[in-house]
Amino acid sequence: MTIPRDFNRGPDDLRPINIQRQFTPAAGSILYSCGDTKVLCTAVVEENVPKWMVGRGKGWVTATYEMLPASTGSRKAPGKPDGRATEIKRLIGRSLRAAIDMEALGERAVHIDCHVLNANAGTRTACINAGYLALCDAISGLIAAGLLEKSPIKHSIEAISVGLIEGEGRLDLYYKEDSAADVDFNVVSANGVDLVEVQGTAEGEPFSRAQLDSLLDLAFVGLKRLKTLHQEALESRP
Amino acid sequence: MTIPRDFNRGPDDLRPINIQRQFTPAAGSILYSCGDTKVLCTAVVEENVPKWMVGRGKGWVTATYEMLPASTGSRKAPGKPDGRATEIKRLIGRSLRAAIDMEALGERAVHIDCHVLNANAGTRTACINAGYLALCDAISGLIAAGLLEKSPIKHSIEAISVGLIEGEGRLDLYYKEDSAADVDFNVVSANGVDLVEVQGTAEGEPFSRAQLDSLLDLAFVGLKRLKTLHQEALESRP
Amino acid sequence: MTIPRDFNRGPDDLRPINIQRQFTPAAGSILYSCGDTKVLCTAVVEENVPKWMVGRGKGWVTATYEMLPASTGSRKAPGKPDGRATEIKRLIGRSLRAAIDMEALGERAVHIDCHVLNANAGTRTACINAGYLALCDAISGLIAAGLLEKSPIKHSIEAISVGLIEGEGRLDLYYKEDSAADVDFNVVSANGVDLVEVQGTAEGEPFSRAQLDSLLDLAFVGLKRLKTLHQEALESRP
Amino acid sequence: MTIPRDFNRGPDDLRPINIQRQFTPAAGSILYSCGDTKVLCTAVVEENVPKWMVGRGKGWVTATYEMLPASTGSRKAPGKPDGRATEIKRLIGRSLRAAIDMEALGERAVHIDCHVLNANAGTRTACINAGYLALCDAISGLIAAGLLEKSPIKHSIEAISVGLIEGEGRLDLYYKEDSAADVDFNVVSANGVDLVEVQGTAEGEPFSRAQLDSLLDLAFVGLKRLKTLHQEALESRP
Amino acid sequence: MTIPRDFNRGPDDLRPINIQRQFTPAAGSILYSCGDTKVLCTAVVEENVPKWMVGRGKGWVTATYEMLPASTGSRKAPGKPDGRATEIKRLIGRSLRAAIDMEALGERAVHIDCHVLNANAGTRTACINAGYLALCDAISGLIAAGLLEKSPIKHSIEAISVGLIEGEGRLDLYYKEDSAADVDFNVVSANGVDLVEVQGTAEGEPFSRAQLDSLLDLAFVGLKRLKTLHQEALESRP
Amino acid sequence: MTIPRDFNRGPDDLRPINIQRQFTPAAGSILYSCGDTKVLCTAVVEENVPKWMVGRGKGWVTATYEMLPASTGSRKAPGKPDGRATEIKRLIGRSLRAAIDMEALGERAVHIDCHVLNANAGTRTACINAGYLALCDAISGLIAAGLLEKSPIKHSIEAISVGLIEGEGRLDLYYKEDSAADVDFNVVSANGVDLVEVQGTAEGEPFSRAQLDSLLDLAFVGLKRLKTLHQEALESRP
Repeated sequence: MTIPRDFNRGPDDLRPINIQRQFTPAAGSILYSCGDTKVLCTAVVEENVPKWMVGRGKGWVTATYEMLPASTGSRKAPGKPDGRATEIKRLIGRSLRAAIDMEALGERAVHIDCHVLNANAGTRTACINAGYLALCDAISGLIAAGLLEKSPIKHSIEAISVGLIEGEGRLDLYYKEDSAADVDFNVVSANGVDLVEVQGTAEGEPFSRAQLDSLLDLAFVGLKRLKTLHQEALESRP
Repeated sequence: MTIPRDFNRGPDDLRPINIQRQFTPAAGSILYSCGDTKVLCTAVVEENVPKWMVGRGKGWVTATYEMLPASTGSRKAPGKPDGRATEIKRLIGRSLRAAIDMEALGERAVHIDCHVLNANAGTRTACINAGYLALCDAISGLIAAGLLEKSPIKHSIEAISVGLIEGEGRLDLYYKEDSAADVDFNVVSANGVDLVEVQGTAEGEPFSRAQLDSLLDLAFVGLKRLKTLHQEALESRP
Repeated sequence: MTIPRDFNRGPDDLRPINIQRQFTPAAGSILYSCGDTKVLCTAVVEENVPKWMVGRGKGWVTATYEMLPASTGSRKAPGKPDGRATEIKRLIGRSLRAAIDMEALGERAVHIDCHVLNANAGTRTACINAGYLALCDAISGLIAAGLLEKSPIKHSIEAISVGLIEGEGRLDLYYKEDSAADVDFNVVSANGVDLVEVQGTAEGEPFSRAQLDSLLDLAFVGLKRLKTLHQEALESRP
Repeated sequence: MTIPRDFNRGPDDLRPINIQRQFTPAAGSILYSCGDTKVLCTAVVEENVPKWMVGRGKGWVTATYEMLPASTGSRKAPGKPDGRATEIKRLIGRSLRAAIDMEALGERAVHIDCHVLNANAGTRTACINAGYLALCDAISGLIAAGLLEKSPIKHSIEAISVGLIEGEGRLDLYYKEDSAADVDFNVVSANGVDLVEVQGTAEGEPFSRAQLDSLLDLAFVGLKRLKTLHQEALESRP
Repeated sequence: MTIPRDFNRGPDDLRPINIQRQFTPAAGSILYSCGDTKVLCTAVVEENVPKWMVGRGKGWVTATYEMLPASTGSRKAPGKPDGRATEIKRLIGRSLRAAIDMEALGERAVHIDCHVLNANAGTRTACINAGYLALCDAISGLIAAGLLEKSPIKHSIEAISVGLIEGEGRLDLYYKEDSAADVDFNVVSANGVDLVEVQGTAEGEPFSRAQLDSLLDLAFVGLKRLKTLHQEALESRP
Repeated sequence: MTIPRDFNRGPDDLRPINIQRQFTPAAGSILYSCGDTKVLCTAVVEENVPKWMVGRGKGWVTATYEMLPASTGSRKAPGKPDGRATEIKRLIGRSLRAAIDMEALGERAVHIDCHVLNANAGTRTACINAGYLALCDAISGLIAAGLLEKSPIKHSIEAISVGLIEGEGRLDLYYKEDSAADVDFNVVSANGVDLVEVQGTAEGEPFSRAQLDSLLDLAFVGLKRLKTLHQEALESRP
């Protein structure tokens, strides 16, 4: 195996995950690290929805994604989201909206703002995971404040990357693996078993249907484990 | 079936496809219609590459995606690409780069500019298909001009959408189907058999692994057919 | 004559003109070619007017002008309209507004979006001509839909360029002539006989009043011919 | 006559003109008022040309046009030049470039920056006139500094507006006339006798060729007078 | 003394000040020069306030700051305010708002637009001084028009720079001094005796508390003199 | 005392300060909290300087300042720095550049990026303090890597706010105090004793010279204490 795994991991191991809730006083504020990738995702509730949604009795969830300048090896000058950031924030938003019964949420918006503090691959999946936890805390806050009677959360949301490295499937790629992967998949699940979003790209040569199947198998190993870890984090005292 | 198919199609039929090459004098210029969706994709070759690629002996393929203001029911004000357009141009670019051996292309760039003249769903897949044909014509032009000895095209590229409508898989969705789909997949193939990009999104409820499998089966029915149609178009006199 | 005319034209001949109506399903959609210059102009009607016009009982006509990246020899990067495009879209808008009785149009806006598919000089006049035809089709659509009782079109609009090449006046310049012209005039007429806009610029040395007069004579030869061609196109079945 | 002229003028009278040279220490700095319209035009010389002109041995003249926020009745918020300002700065630039033998100027740029301090119509023609004087002073400075042996100025440049008010031609419109004009012409001359730019627009109904002719006659009355006034200003001690 | 003072000034002398009121027809329009620094500050009144202030019964004062392209030695390309201009316009705005009893002003805004015609250091303090005078004239206009019964001006506002040059304090620095200063202070007073804003920066080495004290002493010498000069200007016939 | 101090503080007490070094792997990465205000400041070194500084043998220090959307009570939409942020990043940059002997730093840039995670007043001074510590760690990294022989740090830098609340001076204002302050001062010191920057603003009525003096006395109480705390943090194992 030319490219060793970090943290002495086997092909289907996740990186060590660390979750800190209430990192700042926002409604949801999750400091989430997955190996050397570290993100801060916050949730803020606004008691209104975008103009085009007013009067429909439904809520909304938005997402932003930003890499801090010092989060990568060479400094990333701050500024407008580039194409990659735009693509990622749309993925995060779609994934988190799948968690919510928008009618049960009512006409309010939850804004999930994702900040990559350190990038070592897997930042978009880390943001979906941390964003889901921030969303849960914000919803709990609405219930505690008497603004919601019961939770509009329909499903738990989990996200993980898988890739093909030298013909072998690996779960939860870190930077060196990510750079070398022939195929790169990001899979977002509901409740660790159903699918919310599948995005796979051939980085070099096209891949076969059989390779796709084995990568999805591997993804579900991680997604189920994440569901449990997130559940535990939400049940512990923050 | 609540939502009828257009053009009296069965679930695994493509919409009628019309391909006009050399629509304008650009190196590649493809007017491509797929049912009521109509796009114009051009290819322009520049004998240089982006600054960050200079000196590597490799070429590059870029893509842009723009909806003309009159292409949709309500006028779309012109301006900067929005988030959706950014996501799509990145998908088109990645897909078309998969067609090319960049070292064989040499240090030059092919710019694929995609213009949606009329939108009736499937514009991104139509642009990938038309962009592939424009790319082929531009490459032929380079060979005819003696700038390339042999073609750097490694694979043909095809793209199609599939979706789940009321539990049934359908190929090549038109607007009414696209709006009603529970799951929306865009699949890009190489040579009609291997995979270059898979993007699937649950529009409403999460979907199962089994549903994903049957949608991919359906996609390949269309991708194979497209490969043949494109081949025929390229072999005919423009 | 150092610079030959294209299409074996005499000094007061127009380039061959080709008009295709209903090129896309928009309210007006004109594919218009004038020699090797090819434009697509669409018309979209919105049942409201800009904020500063609300409540005056009058309509409005707007125009945009965009060159597609592949429309010129070297690729034109897409983006915000530059100074030239801004100047041209204002000319198109003013010219087309002269066609319309705004009170008869009522509080609605017609948006004329002009796209240059291939540029071989005369793109602004081609856009005024095609824009006028798209405007007519959009108005016919309003009448057919019962939204207007009678047409608010007061005048037909025609536009042509004339120039001085080596002391000789020429009608409807193509690219080589346009680059070499000492004086460049764009003339917009109403009904082929009256004037809506006159714009003349000395590209090299100043020109005399007598030269201006002979150029205007030449312009009217073309404007009258255009009036007839446009009339025929509008009367034919699209 | 429904709309009286200001300053008790006859139809072919100019407004009172006041010219102050060296208003600030810039190479050229002209405070120019024409009735209640007041502009400040400066000229700055840079010993280089835009990138696309380097190495051709030719100079360049650029222009900008800006209305100060307090220059109009209702405050004009500062910001990017709008469409009108873009159109005007291009007109000023073309007009002033016609004054100069670019090879004799050599590879340097003269930047003419026009600021409208108070607007009472005719701001674009006032800026061309003041810009021409600022250009002359900047050229004189280059000669005085030994950077140029002889003047590259080929022609004097003058600009004036004329319009049709209730069927009558009037020279040098002020605001009330400008708002009421049926036709609005701006004419730029060389040496008060030849033409550099002609721009005429029907504000309401189209105008006839005969009306155009009489408006041009009227314009030349003013252009000749301006040539003399500018000559006197340049010959007086600033 | 290595760097001589301009105008044969002693260390605590101001530069010669020249004030011209009603330079243009705006509500307030002050041409103010301080040695070779020359600014034009205008005041425009709008009978509304920013959206976030509506309904509070209070007025507002805004400021902008712009350097004309020809105001400095090398031409300053026009465009968006840079960081320095942003900082300065905020300082001007805060300083002038301190002059006004916002409730007495009522729900209207006074916009102070500052244009630097020539820059020889001290432009921000010149703009505060000229802006104050423009504000006074605009307020007088409101009173004359019967829109205000009595003046909402609570304090006169004055501003001056002081600096340390080779260990010596100097009042009202000109360009050469400003470039060489070790410490640069801008002090804004009310009525020439109290403080509205103090901004001091060590340009090279840190400065001591004692140096700060002596610089403030010097500043008040100038501020008191300015108060008198401004008073005289306001009492003279414009 | 109408507005109580937080943390049971006396008027000249700082809020509790917590400093975490190496929060992320960047060259400098300081998580700094001061009461409920929490900032993350990173330092990244680039081995080049801005274009206008190349070849002078001197280094540079830049700063950015950004409030995270969830850092304030109502969500702050991300985007371009507003006027306040521009003013603050300039203050941070100037303050930190005062710490460094630029010739000893050599031609390299240190970028200090400041992110406000939670805002409870005093964010700009917290960023200067945290930025100074991040700068120190980045410099230590350069020395450890053999890129610098000795430290170019000339002075320690400290920053604190002081204000007048109901006539009483208070050190290190928190949000409620900041909103109610009549005068707001930010003072930046070198080594806790000399002055680098003084910025004081009357929020309501002008203040007297005597009040300024007492506020500066109070500021130095805090600045000296900060110098010690920072020293201890830098000497502890991160």
